[in-house]
Amino acid sequence: MAYKLYYLDLRARGEPVRWLLKVLVQAYTEERISVFTQWPQRKKDFEFEVTPVLEVEGQQLHQTTVICRYLGQRHDLTSHDLWTRTRQEEVMEALHDVSNIVSTAFIARVRGDDAMAKGDAEKVKVKLAVVIRNIETRITEQGWILAAEMTWVDVCVAAYLDIYEEILGQDLLTGHPRTAALLKNVRSLPQISAWISERPGWTKFEDPEGLF
Amino acid sequence: MAYKLYYLDLRARGEPVRWLLKVLVQAYTEERISVFTQWPQRKKDFEFEVTPVLEVEGQQLHQTTVICRYLGQRHDLTSHDLWTRTRQEEVMEALHDVSNIVSTAFIARVRGDDAMAKGDAEKVKVKLAVVIRNIETRITEQGWILAAEMTWVDVCVAAYLDIYEEILGQDLLTGHPRTAALLKNVRSLPQISAWISERPGWTKFEDPEGLF
Repeated sequence: MAYKLYYLDLRARGEPVRWLLKVLVQAYTEERISVFTQWPQRKKDFEFEVTPVLEVEGQQLHQTTVICRYLGQRHDLTSHDLWTRTRQEEVMEALHDVSNIVSTAFIARVRGDDAMAKGDAEKVKVKLAVVIRNIETRITEQGWILAAEMTWVDVCVAAYLDIYEEILGQDLLTGHPRTAALLKNVRSLPQISAWISERPGWTKFEDPEGLF
Repeated sequence: MAYKLYYLDLRARGEPVRWLLKVLVQAYTEERISVFTQWPQRKKDFEFEVTPVLEVEGQQLHQTTVICRYLGQRHDLTSHDLWTRTRQEEVMEALHDVSNIVSTAFIARVRGDDAMAKGDAEKVKVKLAVVIRNIETRITEQGWILAAEMTWVDVCVAAYLDIYEEILGQDLLTGHPRTAALLKNVRSLPQISAWISERPGWTKFEDPEGLF
């Protein structure tokens, strides 16, 4: 049975799930919910009243990192040693954490609170620099995070970095050649390069113009 | 080699790790870092510049949910079926998410932004009600989250609920008898009841008085 993804009309926390489903060559459909016009009415359709939600054989699964880890393990794009897997998940969780602040920045902008939006945008830059420094030291000579072969963590990390590079500018990964190469390699996978050329552009909510 | 936990002088995100280490009967030491006087100087000692950090054989492991999942799996207090485990982790992640808003409420109060502190406190109540409703439906007749026996998720969920019941009042779990029983059962474990009677009180930063 095919997966069904429910998410807002944003890249944000949906993009790691999309990239992973594509790399795993899993059939899925997606329902994009307009953050401005549909979300308030749709919220109650989801058990935890948040998205992304992946419908798995009729059951709702919430939480980006939980969804991605499940998919990676189910379809065996994972390291098997517990300590290695844990250290990879640490990177994913740290990068995912940044999305909380990005989200509060965008929400503050919608509310017209420019001081808070700008403050959060600064916090994003500071936090992201720390996480990227750590990603760089964890990439092996083979080019993947703490592994000789690509795992789901590489795919999801690349999906987030793809967003942040577009938001914060092309020099985001300057000085971090292994991280830049990882992003390039994931973007070059046929399923991902196809998606990058066909995916919708930014919606107004997450258009970074002028904020970062 | 014994574990070493580094965390602030708070319950917050450290408490699930403490409870789990105690239930697993793992020897550990803890360094409590004063959030007001020591944290700014100590921050750079941690690779991701955040705590809690669990030192595992000389290596730093960050991120509350990653630390707890690692401990639960390493010491076999976990369900083994992937889908069951994933659905348990979903609950843990959702409850952990609430700690982000609790934290911004306390930080806003320190900054003297009472409107934001109160607004976040309201958000905590709304979010927590949704999560607790979901926990209730997932507790089995045997009393544990999606399992016949206690797993690490039950212990960590109880540690968070213990905090929130103290913050938000004794009627937090009214109408949710299975969740209340789960909390009571974890609190009654000898290691946990001993810890509850000996642990430090609230520090000023997280004293809920007047905020919720």
